[in-house]
Amino acid sequence: MDSIDTLVLNIAELVTPPASEKARHGRSMRELVRKNDAAIAIRGGRIVAVGPRAEMESRFQSKQIVDAQGCAVVPGFVDPHTHAVWVGKRTDEFEQRIAGATYMEIMAAGGGILSTVRATREAKLDQIMAETKTRLDRMMAHGTTTAEIKTGYGLALESERKLVDAINILDEEHPMDLVCTFLGAHAIPPEYKEDPDAYVDMVVEEMLPEIAYMVYRVTLRDGRSYQRRGVQFCDVFCEQGVFDVKQTRRILESARRHGLDLKLHVDEFEPMGGTSLAVELGATSVDHLVRTGEKELRLLANSETVGVALPGTPFGLGHTRFTPARAFIDMGGALALATDLNPGTSWCESMPMMMALAARYMGMTPAECLTAVTINAAHAVGLGRQVGALAAGYQADFLVLETDDYRDLVYRYGVNLVGEVYKRGVSAV
Amino acid sequence: MDSIDTLVLNIAELVTPPASEKARHGRSMRELVRKNDAAIAIRGGRIVAVGPRAEMESRFQSKQIVDAQGCAVVPGFVDPHTHAVWVGKRTDEFEQRIAGATYMEIMAAGGGILSTVRATREAKLDQIMAETKTRLDRMMAHGTTTAEIKTGYGLALESERKLVDAINILDEEHPMDLVCTFLGAHAIPPEYKEDPDAYVDMVVEEMLPEIAYMVYRVTLRDGRSYQRRGVQFCDVFCEQGVFDVKQTRRILESARRHGLDLKLHVDEFEPMGGTSLAVELGATSVDHLVRTGEKELRLLANSETVGVALPGTPFGLGHTRFTPARAFIDMGGALALATDLNPGTSWCESMPMMMALAARYMGMTPAECLTAVTINAAHAVGLGRQVGALAAGYQADFLVLETDDYRDLVYRYGVNLVGEVYKRGVSAV
Repeated sequence: MDSIDTLVLNIAELVTPPASEKARHGRSMRELVRKNDAAIAIRGGRIVAVGPRAEMESRFQSKQIVDAQGCAVVPGFVDPHTHAVWVGKRTDEFEQRIAGATYMEIMAAGGGILSTVRATREAKLDQIMAETKTRLDRMMAHGTTTAEIKTGYGLALESERKLVDAINILDEEHPMDLVCTFLGAHAIPPEYKEDPDAYVDMVVEEMLPEIAYMVYRVTLRDGRSYQRRGVQFCDVFCEQGVFDVKQTRRILESARRHGLDLKLHVDEFEPMGGTSLAVELGATSVDHLVRTGEKELRLLANSETVGVALPGTPFGLGHTRFTPARAFIDMGGALALATDLNPGTSWCESMPMMMALAARYMGMTPAECLTAVTINAAHAVGLGRQVGALAAGYQADFLVLETDDYRDLVYRYGVNLVGEVYKRGVSAV
Repeated sequence: MDSIDTLVLNIAELVTPPASEKARHGRSMRELVRKNDAAIAIRGGRIVAVGPRAEMESRFQSKQIVDAQGCAVVPGFVDPHTHAVWVGKRTDEFEQRIAGATYMEIMAAGGGILSTVRATREAKLDQIMAETKTRLDRMMAHGTTTAEIKTGYGLALESERKLVDAINILDEEHPMDLVCTFLGAHAIPPEYKEDPDAYVDMVVEEMLPEIAYMVYRVTLRDGRSYQRRGVQFCDVFCEQGVFDVKQTRRILESARRHGLDLKLHVDEFEPMGGTSLAVELGATSVDHLVRTGEKELRLLANSETVGVALPGTPFGLGHTRFTPARAFIDMGGALALATDLNPGTSWCESMPMMMALAARYMGMTPAECLTAVTINAAHAVGLGRQVGALAAGYQADFLVLETDDYRDLVYRYGVNLVGEVYKRGVSAV
């Protein structure tokens, strides 16, 4: 018998998208693998095999048994768009918005992103890490086992470097896997208010050439270590009043030359043409897509770029217009969901909350929601061959739900139905 | 020094509506008592005094100290409208709705409420109680210390009696206080489909005369016991395709003669005139109010009847029209919030989720939200002099939040910021 570390037994239903080399497009987002009384064999933090319990028990000898107690098991969620690394809160601003101020008005008055920038610039690394860690813990308790985090509350070389440090050290210290995105172009910092192009110059000429080459040492469990690049993606907030398409193109083309993969924030409030740019540049993902027109959606649907919907943002702002996910999927697009976790528009750590919103306000079925928070979200951060599915060769990141029907994650809402969280085969919550 | 059971110390901020003989109307919903470094003195499950820490420490000698660890403390929430007692799930129906079926279409086809009626009629008392208990536990973990539960999945004398039994036994066994509402007129049962008036006859002539007089023995902690009426309220689902205003009036007038207080479901999908009826009959609360017109809202605002908004219901259905709470409060109305916890439109146990919805989609401030889930919700179930405020004489039902700012309950969402829950001075979660 093959020796393994862990065998997961007594699963009411194992539900997962199939292992997929690329993000799942269109109708294939509904195609899930659903197995009753399956078992999962795990060795070295990876899945060795998934199969019928009886067969697996005769095939493997395991050091440890995980009893799923008749509950449903799904892959750990991947949150492919967060701004999780910041300090402070914006509760006052939230109250102002309820009283009628718009998000863009608050931002124009020096509130919004810039108030978090002030607080984050002043904060020490330790404080940033401590505040971020409480959010990572909460994300993990709600099922997120891999997340992307963007910089962008520094907006200056040293403070952006500090955020890259925070993300990379947390990646080492916290069980969650983190993907780091450089978002120096998150807002125009106050000192460049009168000359945004000069800030773009600085991003391209000073920040990218430094930040793209930051490296960190990663230590494996067996003690071996290797050096890794600290930043995987570059992103730009392409929006009216922030960065226009021309500035966005300049930053992303530069980032690509430095070997970074690309992401974009587009069409959150006004359509700007950023979606076409994302497709043209072969971005890994293009995010928000609330106001994107049909022609650009169709262009995106026919590309390999993953669309990422962030339903927590319209929800957080009390808006009723969401990403037209139903139309996009019906066009054959590949969609992922993310929290957009941030202190302004959407302080929510829960991916199931995003599934609940997506089903109700974006017409997505429970199966599409599950694909959107697992394999497609993994492809949106370039990790679709490592995480986001329960299949041989994938990381053993899985959730034992407090229900036997994974659809209850979507049907019920506002509560946490994630019972146990396993990261690389180890209990993490 | 006065001897007490418990002293709650180290409170960052104690936030509560003032003790109020009546529900708080209009602008007074924003008036909160906010105290820094306050302490709460508790004896026999009730609050003896709330005051500055130094004064309280010199005045009282306490057997036990509760350390709030620098967090905010608010009153336990009162959920004044739930259908928490049922068996089974309606996950399939949820999927059908996403695919386009309306709630009323599903109901007309024998799904909806009637499918839960079939399951609940067949279930044994033990099973009903066990399934309900898991929901009560989850409600309490999210801060609910008192809740109303309606019958209405029996729709026949014996099965409605069974639900009254379940609610009253759970009230005894579970730390949460429960208020029982008879909702025999929740739907027209299949066997009366062709003759709804005959069902109304049965509610009035057979069910009410029995159910209004069910009694239960309540045992106090000191061993003494007394008999208590099992049902406090009668409610009717006054809606197109369910019960019309004439039928509603007949049932409620009969209930009143049997000594029950009144509640109504009105204007969830179509305005029917039920709000005026509620005011005329002096109902304790009138609930839903999504489609209520300005004239009726104004009538209600000027009455002592509490309006109860259930934002989880439009949310659960993916609708974008909510109760016009801003207008209603500005007219001087008294509003409460509730979950409407039920297996069809809104399976959500969390009152903070309702606050998050109310702020974003109904324009309510955090202060109004807090009043709406505490003192006003208590008045909506006739308990506003016992629970819903942190003041001398009130039950010691309080929450220690995982934040120092109660507004974070509204600003953040989809996660649980309720840290510790105390019911009658005793830790309950």
